[in-house]
Amino acid sequence: MPHPAATRQLKRRLGARTDTSPAGCWAASFDSSKISFLPEAVVTPKIETEIGVVLELANRHRVPVTVRGRGTTLMGSAAPVRGGWVIDMLKLNRVRIDDEAGMAHVGAGATTADIQRAAEARGWFYPPDPSSKEYCTIGGNIACNAGGMHGGKYGVTRDFVIALRGFLPTGELVQWGTATKKFSAGFNLRDLWIGSEGMLGVVTGAVLKLIPQPAARWTLLTAFPDEVAALRAARVLFRARLQPAICEFLDRVSVLCAERATGKTVFPGQAGRPVILLEFAGAVSEIEDLKFEVLAWARAQALAFREARSRTEVEELWAVRRKCSGAMFELGDSKINEDVVVPMRNYERFARFITRLKRESKLAIPTFGHIADGNLHVNIMYHRENSVETRAAEAAVQKLMETVVALGGAISGEHGIGLAKTPFLRLQHSAAQIRAMQAVKKALDPRGILNPGKMFGVVRIWKYEKLQVKFPWDHK
Amino acid sequence: MPHPAATRQLKRRLGARTDTSPAGCWAASFDSSKISFLPEAVVTPKIETEIGVVLELANRHRVPVTVRGRGTTLMGSAAPVRGGWVIDMLKLNRVRIDDEAGMAHVGAGATTADIQRAAEARGWFYPPDPSSKEYCTIGGNIACNAGGMHGGKYGVTRDFVIALRGFLPTGELVQWGTATKKFSAGFNLRDLWIGSEGMLGVVTGAVLKLIPQPAARWTLLTAFPDEVAALRAARVLFRARLQPAICEFLDRVSVLCAERATGKTVFPGQAGRPVILLEFAGAVSEIEDLKFEVLAWARAQALAFREARSRTEVEELWAVRRKCSGAMFELGDSKINEDVVVPMRNYERFARFITRLKRESKLAIPTFGHIADGNLHVNIMYHRENSVETRAAEAAVQKLMETVVALGGAISGEHGIGLAKTPFLRLQHSAAQIRAMQAVKKALDPRGILNPGKMFGVVRIWKYEKLQVKFPWDHK
Repeated sequence: MPHPAATRQLKRRLGARTDTSPAGCWAASFDSSKISFLPEAVVTPKIETEIGVVLELANRHRVPVTVRGRGTTLMGSAAPVRGGWVIDMLKLNRVRIDDEAGMAHVGAGATTADIQRAAEARGWFYPPDPSSKEYCTIGGNIACNAGGMHGGKYGVTRDFVIALRGFLPTGELVQWGTATKKFSAGFNLRDLWIGSEGMLGVVTGAVLKLIPQPAARWTLLTAFPDEVAALRAARVLFRARLQPAICEFLDRVSVLCAERATGKTVFPGQAGRPVILLEFAGAVSEIEDLKFEVLAWARAQALAFREARSRTEVEELWAVRRKCSGAMFELGDSKINEDVVVPMRNYERFARFITRLKRESKLAIPTFGHIADGNLHVNIMYHRENSVETRAAEAAVQKLMETVVALGGAISGEHGIGLAKTPFLRLQHSAAQIRAMQAVKKALDPRGILNPGKMFGVVRIWKYEKLQVKFPWDHK
Repeated sequence: MPHPAATRQLKRRLGARTDTSPAGCWAASFDSSKISFLPEAVVTPKIETEIGVVLELANRHRVPVTVRGRGTTLMGSAAPVRGGWVIDMLKLNRVRIDDEAGMAHVGAGATTADIQRAAEARGWFYPPDPSSKEYCTIGGNIACNAGGMHGGKYGVTRDFVIALRGFLPTGELVQWGTATKKFSAGFNLRDLWIGSEGMLGVVTGAVLKLIPQPAARWTLLTAFPDEVAALRAARVLFRARLQPAICEFLDRVSVLCAERATGKTVFPGQAGRPVILLEFAGAVSEIEDLKFEVLAWARAQALAFREARSRTEVEELWAVRRKCSGAMFELGDSKINEDVVVPMRNYERFARFITRLKRESKLAIPTFGHIADGNLHVNIMYHRENSVETRAAEAAVQKLMETVVALGGAISGEHGIGLAKTPFLRLQHSAAQIRAMQAVKKALDPRGILNPGKMFGVVRIWKYEKLQVKFPWDHK
């Protein structure tokens, strides 16, 4: 249902910021899920107060509002599925570092990597690092509580948000928290907003916690006979309280993909073995001490290991992790990247489940991920024109979600629900839990204008045609 | 308004757990705010499901329910101000450490120090440490998002809660999050519950994040000519990215209190100087490296400093901090301990404000606190029988709250609102913010049975007579 009168008023109020052209609306009609839903207008505010104007109008006229950063989400969280207006936050991209407090004051449209670089230039570190960090915005990171490789040791976006600024759907400006590390005054709507995928309020800016930049980093690549052995070895490491800053697991299919992409074997003579890529970070002397223990672990547990002795060697080892994702498209023209989470105690059971899933689905399912926090990326590969494979992929996703929940894990660790995971929300949450969430939605957005159609309604994304577009952050 | 029929039903259902005796009800009628409101019954569940029974009955009959741990809160958050039933959580006190995941599975009634000790025994560390940690429960810590001395480097309770179990006011069991470090599926009611002072749900258990126990700790006491110099020096330390695990400031009145209590001067020849007590924690070699830089800072900034060279010396230095609070009662028989938060950039302005406040109110106002996170404890001392002092104290609290908000800070860093801070909630939050919070309350507790009378209504605690009781955790 279009809203021509409201859109005319919007143009009158914010003409210079409002784009109703077919090209502009098309560009804002999809995110990385590549399913297109045309909005009626795209507003690109230059200052915060303009967002209040948009929302006040939208709320009055019941116009759906979807907020977007760069649209890197794979879940469809930024797709304007009910039309209406899109607010593009990319111009609200300031980054200011408070040097002594160790905080970053940022606009919602600031790119994650820009924040990291600004912090690093001042000796501070902002750890959350989604793989799209050169493109994705902090607003998007906050919306889906993004994680990345540093989650096990340092935490995720939520763990670094000190305060939020933004708007209620009524257009009223609110601030949740102050730029201080302690705050215990009133209900915590800051964290309720984080991960709510733009459905409870519109984030315009944030104060982020920074930590001192570690002085030293040390990288080690380890290979194992099989997946179960690799995951078991990781648990030995964790039990020894040796906490890596990064701990990336790649199963043998992921390794084969990387080897195909780079044209060399990771370990000469050990082609196609699952690997764990480790990075330790800390004070120079701390890392020196730690090496001794970690190398003893590697000797006892791994089939082979390679320590990076120079920046070039670090890059070489990291190439394995970076290249594997793109190379997967040799196994299928389509990929479902599921960011499930599994408790450590069930790692081996999960590895055996994935082996079974590959066999039963007859699909390639390279799996890699952040094993210090249980966040495994299960990549289900298929050819979209092959209906047998497509149906097998859809069934594999269902089986995967049922299994992670049965193993005490989560259907999403860092991507959120959006449209794509709506069929599985009720696996994760009881009816009482869903009712409580919906009651909160109704309380904070009584007219239902903020990102409607996400989270709670079941959307079968398999029924939608995917756009044949390519983003700079696409791996292929 | 009493609920005799509902209470009879409660006794029928949970007779063995229900106490309606005058002595039992009196003991549950107050917390450390020492203002008494008699409940009709006290239920002490042994198993979680019993709480569901209590709530289902309470919700049906609209009986107010107040949950208590050990009642160490100073804010009145656990006082059953509207009567009804109290649920005492002390029997739900299990603590189980998951060694490889680095997590503690705890019941709401577990004591904070017990959790710390269980973690420490396995090489793990749970940093949040309210000063009442030997008594207070994790359920209470979660209810008010408790902090402590480690907040600057490690964070507060919220930063260590991975998942919560508990009940909606309807008696339905819910779980927010899984025992995994990543979770991004659905609205985050976990963090909405944290700090909500038992008004949105009843927490029965939690999964807590642990971090590796630091191998080394190093303690340093530094003295400064005056408060402004001390706070300025702290900022220099923070700008150098030297992050202490603990950074406790004591103004000169607090130091004088400690000196009177211990019978010795902290620095011979420097009696009554403000001090900063620092503890650094990390790997052995890391601390060795760090000492060099920190001592250079102390030489440049401090009037005098003492390094602890043995466990006994560490204890000696800590005695300063521990004894000062009790010794304050030489300055008045009553104390208002206000846990305000001030951004670092305004430390010196705040120090000057406190000097002015002392002069204008003619009261002793020893101030100490956690200056790595801006959380200063302002202790307003008065004699309760002296009406001039009492009125001056009440006015000083008002002025203090207005000032911290004007300086960009928070009216509470770790105590919460309860009854005592209700007159100031609207200084911190705009009308729109309060409306949003109240809408959430209405959504999750439509009948208003959970801890009614707290947070939003303005309660003048000065009008209530304080009980003359003494708790084991009282400083005096």
